[in-house]
Amino acid sequence: MSSAGPVFERIALIGIGLIGSSVARVVKRDGLANHIAVSARSQESLDTAMRLGIADSITLNAAEAVRDADMVMVCTPMGTYTDVVAAIADDLKPGCILTDVGSVKGSAVRDLSVGLPENVHLIPAHPVAGTEHSGPEAGFAELFDGRWCIVTPPEGADADALEKVRAFWERAGSDVEIMAPDHHDQVMAMTSHLPHLIAYTIVGTASDLEKSLVNEVIKFSAGGFRDFTRIAASDPTMWRDVFMNNKEAVLEVLQRFTEDLTALQRNIRWDEGDKLFELFSRTRAIRRGVIDAKQEKLYD
Amino acid sequence: MSSAGPVFERIALIGIGLIGSSVARVVKRDGLANHIAVSARSQESLDTAMRLGIADSITLNAAEAVRDADMVMVCTPMGTYTDVVAAIADDLKPGCILTDVGSVKGSAVRDLSVGLPENVHLIPAHPVAGTEHSGPEAGFAELFDGRWCIVTPPEGADADALEKVRAFWERAGSDVEIMAPDHHDQVMAMTSHLPHLIAYTIVGTASDLEKSLVNEVIKFSAGGFRDFTRIAASDPTMWRDVFMNNKEAVLEVLQRFTEDLTALQRNIRWDEGDKLFELFSRTRAIRRGVIDAKQEKLYD
Repeated sequence: MSSAGPVFERIALIGIGLIGSSVARVVKRDGLANHIAVSARSQESLDTAMRLGIADSITLNAAEAVRDADMVMVCTPMGTYTDVVAAIADDLKPGCILTDVGSVKGSAVRDLSVGLPENVHLIPAHPVAGTEHSGPEAGFAELFDGRWCIVTPPEGADADALEKVRAFWERAGSDVEIMAPDHHDQVMAMTSHLPHLIAYTIVGTASDLEKSLVNEVIKFSAGGFRDFTRIAASDPTMWRDVFMNNKEAVLEVLQRFTEDLTALQRNIRWDEGDKLFELFSRTRAIRRGVIDAKQEKLYD
Repeated sequence: MSSAGPVFERIALIGIGLIGSSVARVVKRDGLANHIAVSARSQESLDTAMRLGIADSITLNAAEAVRDADMVMVCTPMGTYTDVVAAIADDLKPGCILTDVGSVKGSAVRDLSVGLPENVHLIPAHPVAGTEHSGPEAGFAELFDGRWCIVTPPEGADADALEKVRAFWERAGSDVEIMAPDHHDQVMAMTSHLPHLIAYTIVGTASDLEKSLVNEVIKFSAGGFRDFTRIAASDPTMWRDVFMNNKEAVLEVLQRFTEDLTALQRNIRWDEGDKLFELFSRTRAIRRGVIDAKQEKLYD
């Protein structure tokens, strides 16, 4: 595939937060589309997008933004998906691609399908990238560089539409993986959703300690806690929607985790140091796997 | 305090792993002592220390290493402390300082006091620094730069000895905090021990999934899981000893954490998104505290 020329003539971004504005930036930088129509719920976000030079047209009316668009990318919280589709369904161009950037894909397929015309190609996707910062100013064109983008076509999806979405994300710098929506949700429950839930929990537990102890926890956070605070500073709306929409898979891995933690608690209480040692040795192998898979720089 | 000249004439390091060898390196680099005697259980580690130029004398016999030393620093796993003291007690120089680098201080005071001559000053310390790597080759002189070293004198400890230990760690680049041993253990249970226990648990949970799913978890670990694998790659012996020696404080924070996690699990099951949103918003304040306390570079 040639890397020259736009992938789409005209795209519409519904929502212009961290992900939406990063997409807009990389589209502008690399000429992935000739026109970016941006819609958002606040005029302030739209004005910011225009000022940053990452929108060619702006509107509070999502239906207006999607007219004539070859690809419509929903970049709003997942809790808004059914409302978004209801607002734009009648104005989508025949043959256009509807995609999104949400972290749960089973529910994305479910919610984005409601009332969708048959001549629109639904190809949900999940760029596995983000920072702890939110809003249009927080975006940057390099956000997707070398990161995975998991594209999750529903059964029977149009092959050409799938290839266009793949091409778009590859041009944006991502490594693209194609996966069934439900399988994606199962993998992410373990690699992303459970880690976030646990990080939120431990930071919450710490914040409920007496005030003087909380200050010391912050002061000495470099001992391990600090890494959890970064994860637990992620966008609250996005993460609420993740847990509401990937409930079964999250509850399943959470149950396994809780059983394992209870076993360790018992090992500690009954001085079973050998059991701890066995686990602590076993977990090193996974770390080597992560490093071998080049998912981590060794000394960062 | 002048930064010129050695803090001690002669020091002895018992154990030359990541921490011991990093201490030796910074002592050599900045001339913090005129002689470093090193003892370890394996001749290979001793030969490595000599080859690296971070030991002036080496011996398998800890009693020999501590003779004439002004400060003896125990850098072996905490499970060995009573054996180490039994081996060296008779050969410690009157007036010398006995210190350590272990992560639990109540038990350090307890174990290092057994059979200790009254004319030896016990001043335990905990440099809050480390990496996921182990052994004499893994050390580096900058390990303690800008990191906390918590010094935990027992009640009635000698003031001059305390100041010397403080001076030593400040010259090694650390910010020194003085704390009661039990209070240290309470703070670390939350900031370090619980985070490690949870990281070990979740990596263990993931490694028990079916093989094909484990490979995908590794492949897509950048979504959050990766940060846990780094923590869960820490030294198994050290961490077994942490949990065996800080049992009460760890079980206390673990119980709080489990209650909080169970409440969240229930919120997810019963679609109580507002409760999740409330917690996820609250945890952001702690993150700001960590950043304000300069315990984190914003964009690392």
